[in-house]
Amino acid sequence: MIQIPTFSDEQIDYFMQVALNEASIAFNEGEVPIGAVIVKNNQIIAKAHNHREAEQLATAHAELMAIEKANLKLKSWRLENTALFVTLEPCVMCAGAIINSRIPAVYYGADDVKGGATRSLYRLLEDARLNHRVAVHHGIRSEDCGQLLKQFFAQIRLKRQEKKVLPNK
Amino acid sequence: MIQIPTFSDEQIDYFMQVALNEASIAFNEGEVPIGAVIVKNNQIIAKAHNHREAEQLATAHAELMAIEKANLKLKSWRLENTALFVTLEPCVMCAGAIINSRIPAVYYGADDVKGGATRSLYRLLEDARLNHRVAVHHGIRSEDCGQLLKQFFAQIRLKRQEKKVLPNK
Repeated sequence: MIQIPTFSDEQIDYFMQVALNEASIAFNEGEVPIGAVIVKNNQIIAKAHNHREAEQLATAHAELMAIEKANLKLKSWRLENTALFVTLEPCVMCAGAIINSRIPAVYYGADDVKGGATRSLYRLLEDARLNHRVAVHHGIRSEDCGQLLKQFFAQIRLKRQEKKVLPNK
Repeated sequence: MIQIPTFSDEQIDYFMQVALNEASIAFNEGEVPIGAVIVKNNQIIAKAHNHREAEQLATAHAELMAIEKANLKLKSWRLENTALFVTLEPCVMCAGAIINSRIPAVYYGADDVKGGATRSLYRLLEDARLNHRVAVHHGIRSEDCGQLLKQFFAQIRLKRQEKKVLPNK
């Protein structure tokens, strides 16, 4: 039977904080700061952050990496009775990976108005035509999650401007 | 500048045959028979087949594995000027991976009416709101691609029936 895990507000806050910590690691590595954790029986079984640039892998999004780690940990492609916490709304690829791994619940922070596939552009996790549906919770610690991203992109813009002003540096 | 590779009918047939060979490897391994190849400058730079069961990885679809191999080969997450050939219409996850890796052209065989995300259920690769669009060609060697899948699922059903008739075997 498919069980959808439930959490107290404190637990939700805690798991999103761990995802935020992962996002901070990405930030410090010069990667777009997005972090994810997967929880089963109230225990974190996988955590990951975006590292597309370091690995030059188009698939190295936080959610997809966390899903693969959880598959390895549980020795199963089915992540039943788990929940995914992620700082940014999942993209199309990650929404598909969530469906393919049968995760029953997703908690995410900031909306991604340009590429979000669970609420902003599509509601892929709630499509009754697909073979799996997901309970989606949005806006969890969204200020903190969004702030980290804003800070990252502001820093990128600043570096670009500095390059223009001081081309030899 | 983004270039969309073009191919002769013979080339398309050849690259899909290589994808079909990959699908046959999956078949012989007891995996749902789907194969994919990625081509750049008329050369195959990556090929892969579905191996979800063997690895117990929800993400181990043929297209996603081929994309990761091509990323490693080119040392770049951007697969510009490439084309993906795959025996079955990509799912949501793989459509997203195609977008994320900037593949400009996809050639696929059989439609997937239950989960296809490039034509059957969604047209994710042609959404002008996303940051990348893909030229999609469908129905390439679709009879052969579909036949392999039908044969696989017929075999699965037969095995299930045999188990029911001979429960001790």
